[in-house]
Amino acid sequence: MSKAIVITRPLKPEHVAQLQAIAPDYDFFTQWEKPVPKERLGDVEVILGGDGALTTAILETPGNQLGFVQAHSAGVDYLDLPRLAQAGVLVANTSGIHTEALTEYVIGAILQRTRAFDQAAASQRQSRWLHDVDYAGIAGRKMVIAGAGRIGTQIAKMATTLGMIVTGVSRSGRELPYFTHLVKDEAAAPAFAEADFVVDLLPLTAQTHHFFDAKLLGQLKPGVMFLNVGRGGTVDTEALIAAIKSGQIGHAVLDVFEKEPLPADSPLWQLPHTVVTPHIAGQVAHFKTVVTAIYAENLTAYLKAHKLVSHQLDLNRGY
Amino acid sequence: MSKAIVITRPLKPEHVAQLQAIAPDYDFFTQWEKPVPKERLGDVEVILGGDGALTTAILETPGNQLGFVQAHSAGVDYLDLPRLAQAGVLVANTSGIHTEALTEYVIGAILQRTRAFDQAAASQRQSRWLHDVDYAGIAGRKMVIAGAGRIGTQIAKMATTLGMIVTGVSRSGRELPYFTHLVKDEAAAPAFAEADFVVDLLPLTAQTHHFFDAKLLGQLKPGVMFLNVGRGGTVDTEALIAAIKSGQIGHAVLDVFEKEPLPADSPLWQLPHTVVTPHIAGQVAHFKTVVTAIYAENLTAYLKAHKLVSHQLDLNRGY
Repeated sequence: MSKAIVITRPLKPEHVAQLQAIAPDYDFFTQWEKPVPKERLGDVEVILGGDGALTTAILETPGNQLGFVQAHSAGVDYLDLPRLAQAGVLVANTSGIHTEALTEYVIGAILQRTRAFDQAAASQRQSRWLHDVDYAGIAGRKMVIAGAGRIGTQIAKMATTLGMIVTGVSRSGRELPYFTHLVKDEAAAPAFAEADFVVDLLPLTAQTHHFFDAKLLGQLKPGVMFLNVGRGGTVDTEALIAAIKSGQIGHAVLDVFEKEPLPADSPLWQLPHTVVTPHIAGQVAHFKTVVTAIYAENLTAYLKAHKLVSHQLDLNRGY
Repeated sequence: MSKAIVITRPLKPEHVAQLQAIAPDYDFFTQWEKPVPKERLGDVEVILGGDGALTTAILETPGNQLGFVQAHSAGVDYLDLPRLAQAGVLVANTSGIHTEALTEYVIGAILQRTRAFDQAAASQRQSRWLHDVDYAGIAGRKMVIAGAGRIGTQIAKMATTLGMIVTGVSRSGRELPYFTHLVKDEAAAPAFAEADFVVDLLPLTAQTHHFFDAKLLGQLKPGVMFLNVGRGGTVDTEALIAAIKSGQIGHAVLDVFEKEPLPADSPLWQLPHTVVTPHIAGQVAHFKTVVTAIYAENLTAYLKAHKLVSHQLDLNRGY
């Protein structure tokens, strides 16, 4: 019985053909067209694209062959990483491909508020020349990025080019380019208390669940602009709503939520000073081409020598 | 009869006091409170703040003492520069103080469109999670900045940090940092034809009047995003309206106009794919403090040695 590869997320036919050419001895299944039958789960050696339920189902199949999971996303909180580690499965994500999009989103959302584009648009709808807009400068103001890594570095580069003072918060507190300062999680309270802009880029792990809880939100500078483009679960939603209502958070920009899609009856949709977008901050043009290139290079390396060449996860850290 | 200094634009009392301390032998007039009387026009040696009519009135006063005009703005097209040159008057502007604000405006306006924030806001108003937004990447795309100078350099720095390819167009075509290419006005047609984003930063001079006429607008790439943060008179308004209506310009962002305030019946207000803002792109926080510092340093140098230390204009070029 031959071994199998499953692609979980829709790709174009030419992308599938490109991957098949790398592994001609494998049966290919595509979950959107020709899903893997139950009786073949034990034959799946490689999963291309993230699917928590399928991955678990394969791991639970006695005698399964799973050796490599290549997610389509940067965050992989939907995978049972401890179990994959225990089974000796190699796991990769696509971290980095969202960097440009997320940077554009964060910088764009800040400037939309500080340069008062919304206010100008309201005047424009009435054909009114209202000069006295409520804009604010950003040079010299303070940003804190929680979850300082590759994406945070690019945001820091843009923010410092705009004259901002940028502190990165990470588990290690290790140096990264473009940040003005870097601090460890546990030493971050003073930086959070002084920040004019807080950017949540945290991955969701056991350690980061509700990292922004009522206590930390209550310590932020009153009127702070808070942006979440990491994971919804890193923020306590009820505490966030309370902080926006009280004015502790002066302007919120939210792309991720504890429950997605955000339910139509969530109060977040219609809160004042709140921008809600449907988990699109990281969307990239030509996504399928970009992920296929990563799939292809890791699949080639895996088949050749059971190792990966890029984006491999440290399964003990979870990102 | 003692000599006089006129401040034309409102400053705070402490700013006025700061300037008076530099020139204790002069009578000070403040146009918003205590305007210079007609019979004292001939005594005015220094004008602080731009006022075309007042400047001309003084120049026309026989035996006038005018030696130095310090504008409050970057553009000085409201001053009769040939006449000031002929009279040997030193002229300075405040070029540079608007650099940060203009950069934030241009980058913010581009990202607002490319990251589809307006579209997301429309869905949010209806509490709808609509994933399929019409965003576009900007890395690898082409920007042309007409009027490449100090402000253009800062915009180019941000745009290239975002991965764009930026061509600067200037009279000299001389090298500037952060631009990918620089070309002279007369050699710019190919760059304009390929640009995805055109930023008009031109000052208004005899040479730049209607620089963007029907012919040049017609040569732009169909669907181009066109931003004017220079001067309204550098664009032929009728041709601009036609280019937006035809779709030649896919998205227009206009902060300056041939006639300001933009008349309420101008079709520009309600054209689709058009953002109109009321000449606020360059607005800076703490403006009065910033201009007073420039006034003070040039006034000190002028009184000491009849020369200026910053922002002096070359009256033959007009900027």
